Amino acid sequence: MKIYVLLFSFLLACSPNPKKKKNTAYSLPVKTPTPKDNLLTPEKIHLGKLLFFDPRLSGSNWISCASCHNPALGWVDGLPKGIGHNFTKLDRNTPTILNSAFNFLQFWDGRAKSLEEQALGPITSEKEMNQNMEELLLELKNIAGYRSLFDKAFSGEGIKKETIAKAIASYERTIVSKTSAFDRWMQGEENAVSDAAKKGFAVFNGKAKCVICHSGFNFTDNGFHNIGVSTIAEDKGRHAIVPIKVTKGAFKTPTLRDVTRTAPYMHDGSLKTLEEVVEHYNVGGVVKENLSPNMPPALNLTDTEKSNLVAFLRTLTEEQPEKVELPILPQ
Amino acid sequence: MKIYVLLFSFLLACSPNPKKKKNTAYSLPVKTPTPKDNLLTPEKIHLGKLLFFDPRLSGSNWISCASCHNPALGWVDGLPKGIGHNFTKLDRNTPTILNSAFNFLQFWDGRAKSLEEQALGPITSEKEMNQNMEELLLELKNIAGYRSLFDKAFSGEGIKKETIAKAIASYERTIVSKTSAFDRWMQGEENAVSDAAKKGFAVFNGKAKCVICHSGFNFTDNGFHNIGVSTIAEDKGRHAIVPIKVTKGAFKTPTLRDVTRTAPYMHDGSLKTLEEVVEHYNVGGVVKENLSPNMPPALNLTDTEKSNLVAFLRTLTEEQPEKVELPILPQ
Repeated sequence: MKIYVLLFSFLLACSPNPKKKKNTAYSLPVKTPTPKDNLLTPEKIHLGKLLFFDPRLSGSNWISCASCHNPALGWVDGLPKGIGHNFTKLDRNTPTILNSAFNFLQFWDGRAKSLEEQALGPITSEKEMNQNMEELLLELKNIAGYRSLFDKAFSGEGIKKETIAKAIASYERTIVSKTSAFDRWMQGEENAVSDAAKKGFAVFNGKAKCVICHSGFNFTDNGFHNIGVSTIAEDKGRHAIVPIKVTKGAFKTPTLRDVTRTAPYMHDGSLKTLEEVVEHYNVGGVVKENLSPNMPPALNLTDTEKSNLVAFLRTLTEEQPEKVELPILPQ
Repeated sequence: MKIYVLLFSFLLACSPNPKKKKNTAYSLPVKTPTPKDNLLTPEKIHLGKLLFFDPRLSGSNWISCASCHNPALGWVDGLPKGIGHNFTKLDRNTPTILNSAFNFLQFWDGRAKSLEEQALGPITSEKEMNQNMEELLLELKNIAGYRSLFDKAFSGEGIKKETIAKAIASYERTIVSKTSAFDRWMQGEENAVSDAAKKGFAVFNGKAKCVICHSGFNFTDNGFHNIGVSTIAEDKGRHAIVPIKVTKGAFKTPTLRDVTRTAPYMHDGSLKTLEEVVEHYNVGGVVKENLSPNMPPALNLTDTEKSNLVAFLRTLTEEQPEKVELPILPQ
């Protein structure tokens, strides 16, 4: 008898069951990549969170990282372009912190090679947080709470720009996607997403060719492409960093995770809705100047294909975003 | 036998035991005063919290109530004077939200009679959040999440300035002091505060006369006094609202609860530390112009009395401030 039960179980396990097939190509990573010289510790994460929410990191003592990368708004500010010190209108749309841990390069133009390098950029930028690093170090050293937190996180290293950067980067490495309806679908829950979304995923991978750049679990190739949003004269993009022809007007492919939370879209925040984004690609881009070889020409999508595509994109938002408790900052 | 045990217990209960005597004069209220036309409900509190943290309440969509009343910094901004729209430097120090539910009047000059009336002030002030109320109403009505939240909180009333004000006021009524070391001392825990703090409390009530204005559980008489911080020409204070002689240069007595978290001090944020505040009173005020009859002349405190006074003030900060979880704002 027992052998039959075993045999039956074996056959059941092997039998093709399309409703339960898992697709692991899109599985969220279990571990976040972490540089060898800045391994994650609870102490660094805790300190990094305090720094992330501390407006005293800015020259005005009024702007924190969270002022623009606002967890209440999906780690962005919801504005077309960011606002910085003295209400300066910044040049580009604020990118989300979510999954920035997985980016190969940071910023829209990839000018920072790590989160550590990125973290100090906005703090010291005159247009953004307008902080003088020497003054910041003095300020932090004057706060007893921070002295002891840096001691715990970076024994013997002290308060310096490198440890500030390492702490903030450590906190940012904890800000990663949680399960979305799409993920549940990929895990075999057939009813996790609508039929429209399923058809939209087919359009995404097929006729619309989105997958060429928006690939993998984080829906990005981590590359830089000119997709015809603005002119090169307006913003050179990656070309300012790597001056070759193909980078002219090219910007980093952003993640599509939580995309419903990060409107408005594109490096210049010029598109308000996902519908507008789909239409942008549908017409093959607006500014046809040095377009990326990856950028497909006009797609001629039907209205249904467009709305299905949007329905799919809407499944990529995590269903229960991590709840963020505001820290009590040391005085 | 039993009767003796009972008698003994009775005598024990009656016996004077200074170490366990409770002083209820400073007990935190169990209930927060709430107007009859805006009774507290979980739905209003929830909605009010979202609005409090939502930068879309400002004209720039970048400043929320929490930008200046920052829970991470004790519901203030830590600046001498607030910063508003376009980085405008405001005229006065940002008051804490903590225990504002107990204020008889709101703002430094008491120009608002309720939290409801107060809430709309900074939103529509050009210098602060610079919002046009009509535009805000349209904006909120366009957000499906808010439509349903207003429906739940204010059935049939809709999204209007009155319901916005009521919701925010409801949330603010939940931001009240939790237990401090001082409270534990008053409850009979003799070791809850240091001897220096105990002596400081005696100075507070005696030689320094602080208690004349900073009275009761919230350490305020809810009155308005000129304590000689700045000239009347610089800021008329309460006189702009009630133009009588005694209000010239008079400002509301602030709570001393959580006072270690609300530096810098005074209506103009001109004093950086509690030591400076004590010294201000010790010399009988700096600007001796229309001083309040309540303002004591020079106190001639000894150094020990001064440091004891500060030690006492430090016991008024809640030991475990309420942890604030950032809301996920509707898109």
